[in-house]
Amino acid sequence: MSKTSTGNFFEDFRVGQEFRHATPRTLTEADAALNVGLYGSRFAINSSDEFARSIGLLRAPLDDLLVFHVVIGKTVNDISLNAVANLGYAEFRWGVPVYPGDTVQSKSTVLGLRENSNKASGVVWVRSTGTNQKGEMVLDYVRWVMVHKRDPQAAVGAPVVPKTAAAVAPADLIVPEGLKLGGYDDVVAGSPHRWEDYEPGERIDHVSGITLEDSDHMFSTRLYQNTARVHFDAFAGKNTRFGRRLAYGGHVISLARALSFNGLANGFRLAAINAGSHVGPTFGGDTIYAWSEVLEKAPLPGRADLGALRMRLIAAKDFPCDSFPGKHADGKYHPAVTLDLDYWLLMPRRA
Amino acid sequence: MSKTSTGNFFEDFRVGQEFRHATPRTLTEADAALNVGLYGSRFAINSSDEFARSIGLLRAPLDDLLVFHVVIGKTVNDISLNAVANLGYAEFRWGVPVYPGDTVQSKSTVLGLRENSNKASGVVWVRSTGTNQKGEMVLDYVRWVMVHKRDPQAAVGAPVVPKTAAAVAPADLIVPEGLKLGGYDDVVAGSPHRWEDYEPGERIDHVSGITLEDSDHMFSTRLYQNTARVHFDAFAGKNTRFGRRLAYGGHVISLARALSFNGLANGFRLAAINAGSHVGPTFGGDTIYAWSEVLEKAPLPGRADLGALRMRLIAAKDFPCDSFPGKHADGKYHPAVTLDLDYWLLMPRRA
Amino acid sequence: MSKTSTGNFFEDFRVGQEFRHATPRTLTEADAALNVGLYGSRFAINSSDEFARSIGLLRAPLDDLLVFHVVIGKTVNDISLNAVANLGYAEFRWGVPVYPGDTVQSKSTVLGLRENSNKASGVVWVRSTGTNQKGEMVLDYVRWVMVHKRDPQAAVGAPVVPKTAAAVAPADLIVPEGLKLGGYDDVVAGSPHRWEDYEPGERIDHVSGITLEDSDHMFSTRLYQNTARVHFDAFAGKNTRFGRRLAYGGHVISLARALSFNGLANGFRLAAINAGSHVGPTFGGDTIYAWSEVLEKAPLPGRADLGALRMRLIAAKDFPCDSFPGKHADGKYHPAVTLDLDYWLLMPRRA
Repeated sequence: MSKTSTGNFFEDFRVGQEFRHATPRTLTEADAALNVGLYGSRFAINSSDEFARSIGLLRAPLDDLLVFHVVIGKTVNDISLNAVANLGYAEFRWGVPVYPGDTVQSKSTVLGLRENSNKASGVVWVRSTGTNQKGEMVLDYVRWVMVHKRDPQAAVGAPVVPKTAAAVAPADLIVPEGLKLGGYDDVVAGSPHRWEDYEPGERIDHVSGITLEDSDHMFSTRLYQNTARVHFDAFAGKNTRFGRRLAYGGHVISLARALSFNGLANGFRLAAINAGSHVGPTFGGDTIYAWSEVLEKAPLPGRADLGALRMRLIAAKDFPCDSFPGKHADGKYHPAVTLDLDYWLLMPRRA
Repeated sequence: MSKTSTGNFFEDFRVGQEFRHATPRTLTEADAALNVGLYGSRFAINSSDEFARSIGLLRAPLDDLLVFHVVIGKTVNDISLNAVANLGYAEFRWGVPVYPGDTVQSKSTVLGLRENSNKASGVVWVRSTGTNQKGEMVLDYVRWVMVHKRDPQAAVGAPVVPKTAAAVAPADLIVPEGLKLGGYDDVVAGSPHRWEDYEPGERIDHVSGITLEDSDHMFSTRLYQNTARVHFDAFAGKNTRFGRRLAYGGHVISLARALSFNGLANGFRLAAINAGSHVGPTFGGDTIYAWSEVLEKAPLPGRADLGALRMRLIAAKDFPCDSFPGKHADGKYHPAVTLDLDYWLLMPRRA
Repeated sequence: MSKTSTGNFFEDFRVGQEFRHATPRTLTEADAALNVGLYGSRFAINSSDEFARSIGLLRAPLDDLLVFHVVIGKTVNDISLNAVANLGYAEFRWGVPVYPGDTVQSKSTVLGLRENSNKASGVVWVRSTGTNQKGEMVLDYVRWVMVHKRDPQAAVGAPVVPKTAAAVAPADLIVPEGLKLGGYDDVVAGSPHRWEDYEPGERIDHVSGITLEDSDHMFSTRLYQNTARVHFDAFAGKNTRFGRRLAYGGHVISLARALSFNGLANGFRLAAINAGSHVGPTFGGDTIYAWSEVLEKAPLPGRADLGALRMRLIAAKDFPCDSFPGKHADGKYHPAVTLDLDYWLLMPRRA
């Protein structure tokens, strides 16, 4: 019997099947520093213990997207090692903040399965949950992914397609316990603009670009213990349709989020993702630019000190975003676009 | 109103204007390790908690140049985002050591302004100060930088040119409190040579070279949350006069300092910079070599256990330094030279 | 007198000579995270404090190979700066685990010397020992290395060739104090296969490959404060027989070990190295694959909860290992092979 895992194929999954994913990881101050070094993030909440304490937290929590990278990275070996494509996310919410010293692990439950008509692959829906060492939820989401069949002839069950919410409702957003924004210091945070200053339809060009090298995105993929070889095997990459290694899509999300500091510096916490698409591939040497659009504004129940902004974040490669490249009327994206993300951001309100 | 910062232009500054720069940063053990990984530094004081305690410190302090990188990195967005060139430093002194867990922030005051005769730019003098969470000074310096005008027609005030000291006097050098070198272990530190063994005029070739890659210098620029895009935007870099990304000059200083271990291993602490010039640009793929010259020796008031050496540190690229490339009689530098730094170094004396 | 070290040459060594190597290093959580980021290691023991506590340890110990990199890195400046080639290791055993906060230093004793017949070089045998701040042994080994003579005419003493054991006996393997595997969780560790499931002669292809870039291996060499310039000086590298920088061989060992997780996930601890050879050079851009063979199985005296596997680990570059490339009948290696390592691995037994 082979002791080597080659991952699960479509016909290996069963609705209701549960996975406890391997290799929990104790995140530390080092992950915080590496997150700054890899992406250049400048949000004060993740950079300064003093700032974090001034808004009621224990110390600087780890970057929200870092938590995402670690949680999803652990699921790859069981869920998406044989993926054709990542199709979508829903009901994606962050829970309690993760602090240095916390140990994060992931588990998943199969919610749905539907074979494709060509019988070569099928769609797998899972709910994945990241927890800390106390069992508290740090991230929870539904993801669906197209997975190869090992054997196109293998018989599979009747399709089960789960129903997921089109977006996370503002009332369902989770505000970290103890958070108090009365003493929030705009100057230290880097912007005078608060929740009241943003309006739906407003577009913000984040101006700067950051180039990512192969060495950078491979480092992040390894750091998150993500085993999707397409990201770090240049030899095998030569025989793929791209002819080379593909940057981990999460690397681009983190770069775009870091760039969005210029215009959204007070958007201190990601609360939820409504939808997201890696529109195009990214490779070593590409320079990532980004722009944002305010989609919606929502007050939060019982909170006078902060509100939520529903944002669209677009990243483009080798294309500055002062012309706001996006989706054309025909439904096609501008060719430079690599990411289209719809998410909820928490921001302080004026006293 | 745009929420995006494009930085200050020359006509935006006023003498006496004060800036509290955004995004304080809690430095940690991770920054210490990354400093070793990025530059290969081998000074025992920054590498070993045990060694640091043996000379009276709490634990291994963070590398002095790392403190510089972080303090100056925070000033970029307000002071030098639209810089034409970095012109000089003066009265540049390190204060209390920075330990893992300390939170560093930066502030600046505009000391002087002088428009250039072409009216396209002007020189801005600032005093910048880095402090820890207790408000103690960790680094303090005057810097002057040439900054573009947004509008050449904009009227500006009469020139104010501050007077700065030509060099830091030995009596003004700050020795960390509690430092006691009675138990200083030369073998562990890596050299038998102490303050008494160096003489003005002595030249030291540091022998080894270290190649820096684009991935390396971009990582350090992001780690220090330095927003000078010229360092990490390869796409925009194509349209600059160099046709490519320019390595952050501080990266070269740290490499040269790390190389200087071979010959100056007991130079455990930088106390001050008298002057410094990034003589030439450095790019990914360049190999940095370095050599030093002893400029001056100074005992320190009330200290029998340590003295100061005023050193000149020259870095050259793709050019080993056994021939000591420097400034020619005509005032021009050898074409390989990229850095010329004049600084004060603390070193133990013999008992 | 020159203050610059150019390392020791063959005629500088004396049998019985002792070295306390410079620059002890306090290893931290950052080194743990960097080890994951550089190599993609997924062993739960080094990744999760919670997992490590569940098997009786204080917290997640640092990766065994990281300890090796740091201990040997410190010896380079005194022992092998002028090496022609690394020839072998013997009696190579890990001692107490190294935890974040421990300070590691190295010392060496010259065991033997034998000039080569061409008088241009000779073989130096040293016993090197890494210790923590309490003086406890963390790693101990004999290494022999061929070192240039400075002057071929220099007279040297009669040859002294030490006797070393051909392999480490199972009874001599060191099991970390307090280790208790009763609660070992296979699912969290990532494999259902325990000691009983492996048989001598069994071969395991570790499937995935990881590409290493120049930026990656230079970072690791600097991080370990290893001064072997062949690894990080691209300018000088042009004039070597390879015409370029050579990756640090330890980088390849760590990559191969990380890859071996797929098939050996429960091999949680390296106990000893019996022999090892860097069969071929590795360069930036190479993709490393690996496979393993079980050489021997040994129970451990007094331990029903764990046993030892003697493993052979082969790494190959730009060559997937499903065909198990190794040594041919004529004693020559398959041209893709870069590493052949014979080591002892600890693995839990079934209750």
